[in-house]
Amino acid sequence: MIQLRPQVWPIMQAALQAVDPERAVSHYFTQHPDILTPLQQTQGRLFVIGAGKASAPMAKAVQQLLADKISAGIIIVKYGYSQPLPTGSPIKIIEAGHPVPDDAGLQATRELVALLQQTTAADTVLCLISGGGSALLTLPAEGLTLADLQATNQVLLAVGATINQINTIRKHVSAVKGGRLAELAMPASVISLILSDVVGDPLEVIASGPTVADPTTFAEAETIINQFNLAAKLPRAIIQHLQAGSLGQHAETPKPHDPIFQQVTNFIIGSNRVAAQAAMSAAQTAGWQAQLLTTFIEGEAREVGRVMAALAKGLQRGEGNLPLPMCLVLGGETTVTLHEPHGHGGRNQEMALAAAIALEGWPRILIACLGTDGNDGPTDAAGAWADGETVGRARALGLEAVAHLNHHEAYNLFKALDDLIMTGPTHTNVNDLILIFVW
Amino acid sequence: MIQLRPQVWPIMQAALQAVDPERAVSHYFTQHPDILTPLQQTQGRLFVIGAGKASAPMAKAVQQLLADKISAGIIIVKYGYSQPLPTGSPIKIIEAGHPVPDDAGLQATRELVALLQQTTAADTVLCLISGGGSALLTLPAEGLTLADLQATNQVLLAVGATINQINTIRKHVSAVKGGRLAELAMPASVISLILSDVVGDPLEVIASGPTVADPTTFAEAETIINQFNLAAKLPRAIIQHLQAGSLGQHAETPKPHDPIFQQVTNFIIGSNRVAAQAAMSAAQTAGWQAQLLTTFIEGEAREVGRVMAALAKGLQRGEGNLPLPMCLVLGGETTVTLHEPHGHGGRNQEMALAAAIALEGWPRILIACLGTDGNDGPTDAAGAWADGETVGRARALGLEAVAHLNHHEAYNLFKALDDLIMTGPTHTNVNDLILIFVW
Repeated sequence: MIQLRPQVWPIMQAALQAVDPERAVSHYFTQHPDILTPLQQTQGRLFVIGAGKASAPMAKAVQQLLADKISAGIIIVKYGYSQPLPTGSPIKIIEAGHPVPDDAGLQATRELVALLQQTTAADTVLCLISGGGSALLTLPAEGLTLADLQATNQVLLAVGATINQINTIRKHVSAVKGGRLAELAMPASVISLILSDVVGDPLEVIASGPTVADPTTFAEAETIINQFNLAAKLPRAIIQHLQAGSLGQHAETPKPHDPIFQQVTNFIIGSNRVAAQAAMSAAQTAGWQAQLLTTFIEGEAREVGRVMAALAKGLQRGEGNLPLPMCLVLGGETTVTLHEPHGHGGRNQEMALAAAIALEGWPRILIACLGTDGNDGPTDAAGAWADGETVGRARALGLEAVAHLNHHEAYNLFKALDDLIMTGPTHTNVNDLILIFVW
Repeated sequence: MIQLRPQVWPIMQAALQAVDPERAVSHYFTQHPDILTPLQQTQGRLFVIGAGKASAPMAKAVQQLLADKISAGIIIVKYGYSQPLPTGSPIKIIEAGHPVPDDAGLQATRELVALLQQTTAADTVLCLISGGGSALLTLPAEGLTLADLQATNQVLLAVGATINQINTIRKHVSAVKGGRLAELAMPASVISLILSDVVGDPLEVIASGPTVADPTTFAEAETIINQFNLAAKLPRAIIQHLQAGSLGQHAETPKPHDPIFQQVTNFIIGSNRVAAQAAMSAAQTAGWQAQLLTTFIEGEAREVGRVMAALAKGLQRGEGNLPLPMCLVLGGETTVTLHEPHGHGGRNQEMALAAAIALEGWPRILIACLGTDGNDGPTDAAGAWADGETVGRARALGLEAVAHLNHHEAYNLFKALDDLIMTGPTHTNVNDLILIFVW
């Protein structure tokens, strides 16, 4: 199956290109002159703000399209993720801590908020959001500290709160999350361009939804505190803040029917779905039948890998009516439950290895599992290839696939086989893709 | 979504009917007059043998079609699984132990083997195999005891041998498995009708392939013993038998190119694929678009359930080109890794519960997970329904879906909701089916 890889490589490339942050912003504006033209012709001022790992290249695209309209801008990115803008650009790029927020992020967010206080009703705030934005855009509610927020986060994770519960609390101890950034931008209009790193693209979850109405309440936050008996475990200031909020002593986060949202529009400009659909189109162009099954894949990587192998086998045996040669496209993001001691790998490599074990001996199947950011787990690979020969080729090198899977040691096996997918860092992140080729 | 269930119930029924053992045998002969007619016209004698949980109704069908041609027969079934044949039928049905073989099975197998010793080249042996046949058709190789075989089995499971490794050993310590039953039937012709309870229908695995060529060898068996250092752990007689076999002192199991297989034909008359295809056809007849994706599903039930929910969401959002209303059909068999303490449930109910959690709030999706034997795990239900309302309806009754899933306690939750799928025992087993309805 190795010989097929160069043929299908462009299909992966097409998917990654479709969600390149700079290209996604340009493409979006090209496709939506109804948004771009008013910005180009506005008599008001244009402020460009944003936070996220991909927000620097997004700003670059905005700078190119709207250069002379931009009054000022602040973009907060992860350390090492800034990119030079043209000399004289009014957009300032500030690096800060991720995934743990730090003082640099706090200062940058304060500066960003100060910028928003200059806006008038004639102005537009263009907000560039991408994955990581929640940690980078960080400003505790009045009376709370960054340390309070971090301690709260750790306790919530430790007691097993769900991500929805954690987000409910987070949004009610922050001055910018859960739509509060949009509030701060008033009376200007707000256009948020969002690169989604959350499966299913829930607007209120991506980067904690700084410009999105928050359906959750202080009362719900307090219920969660009580449910987990956190009154004594959380910082006292946090408990007091939430209780006061519950009693109506703090303003609620803006809700879906809040009139401010008549001035706010949120657009997903890049997502797993965009990447997956680009892969499907590219596969069709390359002569494959292609079908995008879902971008909602979640679950334990190795188990998902077995299901992917099952889908390939069903196709290969012609069990249904789907024609060959077929490229099935799936997307989402899996997780790995690590057992100690463990080796080196990532969720996509682990999925590929589990799929390879299930596919041993099967002909005419090739599966690619990759993270769109180019870094699968703590490795320099985006993912790996799996086919019916993987296990046998590894065995010939003295590497047992099952043992490697059991020890979360996929990287070295795939490296030895030259079966890692190496894209280099893509500077975007719209989760993971799975391409299943059967012919 | 509850109101849709009566509409889709016939789709499940069609699947189960297609693999009803009695009907599967009749249907097979009706579709293959080239097999039936020579049997009806043969001048030789017809012997009917078999083993498995579904072999009694299979024998019933043979009795009806070939009554006056049958000279004698012995069918071994699990305790409680016998069914009355017409008075005067020469086929004797014997009940025996399953899943742990017992003396009754041993005696019945001896009797069955004795019957085969009467055959001549003019005769035909019709062999009716179904799930459970491996435990029911049990005869240790000369010099070994049932206790030796059972001890071996337990050790192999305990050291984590794969199912392929276990089967290699099993076939080389048995007088009937791995094609040896076909050898014993010589010089007669053998026709095996097989109801498959193994994912992927590997002939040599179903009931340990009594009439199927065995690709494995004594030498491989010995390698496995050495790999796991079992020389001191297994019964001495077993070790000696395998070593002697390895030295050529026992005849090998018959291999694929053995001339005896010119007189042996093996037919899968019922399988997960047959059931799944029947479901697909019935869904189409009922006005659904339908697609059979795979019958190779394996993996941890709750993780597979999440992937099933993801497939439903992708369809619901129209991410690919698959049209609605759609019925996706998948089959296979999942497993549950139990954590103590645990409640009451089964793999299909656990899968449905995990799917329901992932689907919370989603409209126009209904998933059915069921075991074709009608008994999911140690419960009286075949499986359960899952939809976007399951979790909320449970919560309204004070039942938390996540907690129930964590404690393997799906049964009581679904029972309280009246969301169990109750088919009663179907007396067949072709693994599990998943039907995903999206409209």
